[in-house]
Amino acid sequence: MRVEIISIGDELLIGQVVNTNAVWMGRELTQQGFIIVAVTTVGDRSDDIIKAIDVSFERADIVLLTGGVGPTTDDITKHTLCRYFHTTLDFNNEVLQNIESIFLKRNIQLNQLTRNQAFVPVNATVIQNKVGTAPILCFNNGKKVLISMPGVPFEMKTTMRDDIIPRLQVQFQPKGYLKQSYLVCGITESALATRLATFETQLPAGFSLAYLPSFGFIQLRLSAWGESRKPEMIQQGNKLKQLLGKEFVSESDQTLEALLGEKLRKQQLTVSTAESCTGGYIAHRITTVPGASDYFKGSIVSYDNRIKEELLQVDKQTIDKKGAVSREVVEQMAEHVAHTMKTSCSIAVSGIMGPEGGTLEKPVGTVWICTRHNGKLLSVAYRVGSSREENIERTANLAILQLIRMLTP
Amino acid sequence: MRVEIISIGDELLIGQVVNTNAVWMGRELTQQGFIIVAVTTVGDRSDDIIKAIDVSFERADIVLLTGGVGPTTDDITKHTLCRYFHTTLDFNNEVLQNIESIFLKRNIQLNQLTRNQAFVPVNATVIQNKVGTAPILCFNNGKKVLISMPGVPFEMKTTMRDDIIPRLQVQFQPKGYLKQSYLVCGITESALATRLATFETQLPAGFSLAYLPSFGFIQLRLSAWGESRKPEMIQQGNKLKQLLGKEFVSESDQTLEALLGEKLRKQQLTVSTAESCTGGYIAHRITTVPGASDYFKGSIVSYDNRIKEELLQVDKQTIDKKGAVSREVVEQMAEHVAHTMKTSCSIAVSGIMGPEGGTLEKPVGTVWICTRHNGKLLSVAYRVGSSREENIERTANLAILQLIRMLTP
Repeated sequence: MRVEIISIGDELLIGQVVNTNAVWMGRELTQQGFIIVAVTTVGDRSDDIIKAIDVSFERADIVLLTGGVGPTTDDITKHTLCRYFHTTLDFNNEVLQNIESIFLKRNIQLNQLTRNQAFVPVNATVIQNKVGTAPILCFNNGKKVLISMPGVPFEMKTTMRDDIIPRLQVQFQPKGYLKQSYLVCGITESALATRLATFETQLPAGFSLAYLPSFGFIQLRLSAWGESRKPEMIQQGNKLKQLLGKEFVSESDQTLEALLGEKLRKQQLTVSTAESCTGGYIAHRITTVPGASDYFKGSIVSYDNRIKEELLQVDKQTIDKKGAVSREVVEQMAEHVAHTMKTSCSIAVSGIMGPEGGTLEKPVGTVWICTRHNGKLLSVAYRVGSSREENIERTANLAILQLIRMLTP
Repeated sequence: MRVEIISIGDELLIGQVVNTNAVWMGRELTQQGFIIVAVTTVGDRSDDIIKAIDVSFERADIVLLTGGVGPTTDDITKHTLCRYFHTTLDFNNEVLQNIESIFLKRNIQLNQLTRNQAFVPVNATVIQNKVGTAPILCFNNGKKVLISMPGVPFEMKTTMRDDIIPRLQVQFQPKGYLKQSYLVCGITESALATRLATFETQLPAGFSLAYLPSFGFIQLRLSAWGESRKPEMIQQGNKLKQLLGKEFVSESDQTLEALLGEKLRKQQLTVSTAESCTGGYIAHRITTVPGASDYFKGSIVSYDNRIKEELLQVDKQTIDKKGAVSREVVEQMAEHVAHTMKTSCSIAVSGIMGPEGGTLEKPVGTVWICTRHNGKLLSVAYRVGSSREENIERTANLAILQLIRMLTP
């Protein structure tokens, strides 16, 4: 079950686009028990793609290609695969029907270039692309396989989840991969590693513990191979949870927002947010979860202090005296937004994300987060990093985690 | 001047870390006129690294390795390079002095593991690492070169800028890379390709046109090599812009939110958003741009219809009669948010992102977007896709683009 990913596209080589596809695929496939041996990125040139496929088949059983399958002339993957597998293109009516149904939904006209997407290599097995026009193509090479799919992240993810991973699981059976995740927060990676050093050395043979640090929390992954090891897995997991102590949050490997949503729904609670420095990002994260409208009511993004006063009724004197980034201000924000949106819970944040706006007393990275539940307020000051993008991400994670912990008995 | 980048590290393969090094290097080197032919990522295994180097030297003149040069046992690049170049390690006093000076600055004790960093391959040319302990190693392979450097982004960037790029420029004298981006919207990729078919075939030799489709817009990239071709580049660019017609938005290759920010700042305008289905995502996108507080005031996220009525003063009868996803509702939202936040511009959106909530008349993917500028409202109905994640992204892009176009004379 050795996998190589080949990403195709000049935009990846010249540094215009980050190869997030390879990261996503690496993570998903690893979790399913596949082993990624290499990721190769090449440009939109036939010879380079062929060379890359040749090398891949030397070291991998499964070769996954992304990109170069659009309708324009710089998209050459399909023709290159014909060359590689010594085959030709043939018109496929089912692909055309699929494309037509997609164009119908979007209410746009089908032209010849898009119609050409229905030409597929004769010896390829076709998987229909449910969310785009380029079909997914599967080739056998002895006992090995090559699958070509779109580079558009959403199309790639949809077909990987719905079609390709299930198909590879049946064919290659990377069975017996056991894993359990542990969401941990409030401790640094090195402090956690020190605490777990003895546990790690005493793990049964074949067991491993991986650290996946994110901004503001760490996902631990305990894993082993073989169904027969399930009892040991449970035993080691219990031992681990004890060691994690109060830093342990959940055994879920859902996103933080999905975990929060689950807790709110179970406890029949509702939530709203009042955001300054995160600019609506916490509300966005909460609403990425399907059905979030059951518990999320709305948000007031008060980037400007005047909006804090007028829409969130924060006392002007408090802002003047304590500053916009203070316990008093986030508490007033959390109270007012819960009141005005009539929600049982709320989240309020105010901080300095940078690069500008820091002072000696309150440098870039200073954040106050207040969460409200059951009429009680919990306010915590944090110091996040020095980069804006990272700070927004970390602040949102910390805020969602803070409410999750308030909702956890 | 063909370059291959080899990134070493299991964390890259299992999707724990995004390979931002390769993106940065790709961009810097391309701008200096080097051609990146491939980026290969392999794990911390000697055989895999050797295989990757072998393949690299077949297609590239310059092989740049990052990673695997730390002081711990899983860092094996140095030993692997000894194996590859048939050489051994020798102690290098200058490297030790460099390490000692760095430890002195950080005020920490030097241990044996770090001291071992001063052992370097006998036939390598050493570049001192000014900001870390692992030396940079250069090897000649006939007329080709291999350079090994740390994977820590800050260390890699420092040595690339200060040492490696200047050195490669002297040795390989690359010619300039010319590129120009064109932001296009309101047309499908295939319709655009059809329109540009003749232009593409008539491009001068060495010129190429690439399509980078995103949700709701397309980035076109016209490129060529060699400073001498600048006049042709300008000529072809003008021709292209004419063909793009009203679908042309900008020659910028910034993000949409950065482009919007630039326009707002230049025209001394301010903006606020009233978001239903996007749940704060548009506000988030606008505030990812450093300094956004100069023109962004805030947002009201009215996920619940009651919030639309109470906080955005949307008329209850309008909602009952026309539905929350309607021209009338987004127009009232845009008007009220601009009024209450005292901004010259505003964006309001309401739509059905799915998977639930669609009706026969208004299926999942139905979106109304209203943008306000100069007291005028522009309201457009769109049909986005059928997946929630994609719909949120596409709606935000369309909304930001709609305001950008209103601000473009």
